[in-house]
Amino acid sequence: MATTRLWTDAEAEVDPRVKAVFDDIRATRRSDFINNIWRALAGQPDLLERTWASLKAVMVAPGELDPLTKELIYIAVSTANGCSYCVHSHTAAARAKGMTDRQHEELLSVIGMAAQTNALVTAMQLPIDPQFLVEG
Amino acid sequence: MATTRLWTDAEAEVDPRVKAVFDDIRATRRSDFINNIWRALAGQPDLLERTWASLKAVMVAPGELDPLTKELIYIAVSTANGCSYCVHSHTAAARAKGMTDRQHEELLSVIGMAAQTNALVTAMQLPIDPQFLVEG
Amino acid sequence: MATTRLWTDAEAEVDPRVKAVFDDIRATRRSDFINNIWRALAGQPDLLERTWASLKAVMVAPGELDPLTKELIYIAVSTANGCSYCVHSHTAAARAKGMTDRQHEELLSVIGMAAQTNALVTAMQLPIDPQFLVEG
Amino acid sequence: MATTRLWTDAEAEVDPRVKAVFDDIRATRRSDFINNIWRALAGQPDLLERTWASLKAVMVAPGELDPLTKELIYIAVSTANGCSYCVHSHTAAARAKGMTDRQHEELLSVIGMAAQTNALVTAMQLPIDPQFLVEG
Amino acid sequence: MATTRLWTDAEAEVDPRVKAVFDDIRATRRSDFINNIWRALAGQPDLLERTWASLKAVMVAPGELDPLTKELIYIAVSTANGCSYCVHSHTAAARAKGMTDRQHEELLSVIGMAAQTNALVTAMQLPIDPQFLVEG
Amino acid sequence: MATTRLWTDAEAEVDPRVKAVFDDIRATRRSDFINNIWRALAGQPDLLERTWASLKAVMVAPGELDPLTKELIYIAVSTANGCSYCVHSHTAAARAKGMTDRQHEELLSVIGMAAQTNALVTAMQLPIDPQFLVEG
Repeated sequence: MATTRLWTDAEAEVDPRVKAVFDDIRATRRSDFINNIWRALAGQPDLLERTWASLKAVMVAPGELDPLTKELIYIAVSTANGCSYCVHSHTAAARAKGMTDRQHEELLSVIGMAAQTNALVTAMQLPIDPQFLVEG
Repeated sequence: MATTRLWTDAEAEVDPRVKAVFDDIRATRRSDFINNIWRALAGQPDLLERTWASLKAVMVAPGELDPLTKELIYIAVSTANGCSYCVHSHTAAARAKGMTDRQHEELLSVIGMAAQTNALVTAMQLPIDPQFLVEG
Repeated sequence: MATTRLWTDAEAEVDPRVKAVFDDIRATRRSDFINNIWRALAGQPDLLERTWASLKAVMVAPGELDPLTKELIYIAVSTANGCSYCVHSHTAAARAKGMTDRQHEELLSVIGMAAQTNALVTAMQLPIDPQFLVEG
Repeated sequence: MATTRLWTDAEAEVDPRVKAVFDDIRATRRSDFINNIWRALAGQPDLLERTWASLKAVMVAPGELDPLTKELIYIAVSTANGCSYCVHSHTAAARAKGMTDRQHEELLSVIGMAAQTNALVTAMQLPIDPQFLVEG
Repeated sequence: MATTRLWTDAEAEVDPRVKAVFDDIRATRRSDFINNIWRALAGQPDLLERTWASLKAVMVAPGELDPLTKELIYIAVSTANGCSYCVHSHTAAARAKGMTDRQHEELLSVIGMAAQTNALVTAMQLPIDPQFLVEG
Repeated sequence: MATTRLWTDAEAEVDPRVKAVFDDIRATRRSDFINNIWRALAGQPDLLERTWASLKAVMVAPGELDPLTKELIYIAVSTANGCSYCVHSHTAAARAKGMTDRQHEELLSVIGMAAQTNALVTAMQLPIDPQFLVEG
């Protein structure tokens, strides 16, 4: 289905850079499961390493926003971008981080509300209220 | 600049349905400020009433997600949809609800990360891992 | 502001292919006004000719949908694509073809509604009901 | 396939709010068929009620645009947003409201034309002609 | 699966305009294979003729950019627009025109990078540096 | 105008991490000019460092695609994403790397063509030809 090949575990074992990333994904997530995006990126070790390093820094390292909030934001972006795989994978990730059905429902409400007002605003081409501008 | 006219306060006073919504916005937000989206929707009272009622139910009424988290999700959707007005107005709203500069920075990191992996996944047309599917 | 230069009437006079398209736009629309998209495309006569010929065939020639309906569809696409110039120019075109304020308001309602359900459906990753499929 | 569960008729019967909406959908459409978006929203009665009430007000209640025109606009938005389910369901709805194959073909022409000029205009970053601006 | 019917070769033989386009596609590509977009457009000969004529002029005729570069650009647009069919068909076309696995990998890197900075810039609503503007 | 503050050179001098990135941008580009995206990211040194490091690896380091081709792809993505700042900055970058007016014109043709067929394909919901699938 993909436009690029998905690496098996056996193949990943052979390339030390891929193996190192796969090992780190497994250790970080405390799970043996490697999902398809990493198997697809394995063919390009530079991009694989950069993408995992960034994802780990942004989504795993402690920060100002809690991990579940970050997954909800990720789902929102993925929905607006129409990325089916991403909506599926990050909804699963959000559930794994404790998202309840009720929270998922409210997330849907907010995403739907934002999409509607985005469209209204764009169709009306509204000028930005001066109150919303950050001082130079 | 807009494709529709922005109602002044004087005009809003005259239409009882518009006045009622403007009054409720001011009471709900404890502020006299009515931003442009409501002034632009004033010409169509049905849509004005429905939109404000929905926004109030989703963003103001107590729910499963805290108000700031909902604003961050709103910014994420607005960014992915490229809605300039919406990014400005909801970034201001998030700040008003307590978003710190550090939280804004982390929000940007998550939005950027999600956009990047969305694009990679779409370019690679990845099949969804069966583990991500909700049972029928 | 643009990434390409806008041709003046004096410049358009000099290139016979550009002049021919500008003349035809003026004759077709019974107006001397040439808007910026045509002035920007003037630097590439092939694309200018192809684009104007297509636009004329789709939007001007008699067809199955009336001219105003086609402008409403154009606004809808332009809104969803976030194209500010296009929303402005086709809202003006729709007004010139008779769109009333009330019709514009209803157009906004439909666009907003569609955007909201689009987002909900994408976030929920709904399978298509078999009833909606066209038989092979 | 979905990220949320689809309610069966048996389950919908049990929740009075869900049952009321499903009953009204069936009565309004004079059909027993309930499509997946409503089954998916059934888990969150507030959003279900709000969404159906809005959809009914916008798409079913008599207005300034005829029902078929509104479906064409809905298809246009759904296409630009890349919402597969929505394109399918509203193309089916448009057919049910009388859209002919020839009208569908012309709709495609307009959508394609708009997408092309949207892209050209965005790539050229055209300034908006002053003639298109609504007076303040 | 489609919202429109796909024409078989037998049907295409009967309509002289469709047959002429299909023959030209086969001659131009030196291949008997007609992919689904042309079979879907066959129901509307005007749009079929216009679309193939434009595609041939843009993608096949010699120009300033080499054929492979144009396919990479096509993939980039299709990815950003979330068009699954288009990503698949133009990735295949790029491979047929000589794209190596390593070039595909680098294309992915650029697309992902662009998507990330697009999102950051939109979230930050950056003013355009005067240095980037084309003089009047 | 932005939702975040743009750092001046004087401010950048004070933070050693920001200064290091700004110095490297200037050295890499052999120019004193620092454009707004870097000034906006300066408030979050982690994201600034990661973004510049990625951009340098993808766009500056020698690879399989020549630098100008990568800029054309960047413009294409930015156009489809409707990112005004990005279209401006990467059109300027492409010109600096040798893009001629004629190449820019052809780039526009390809982007417009892709957007049109993307929309047609999405509206028709075409199934992917089996010939386009990569073997498992």
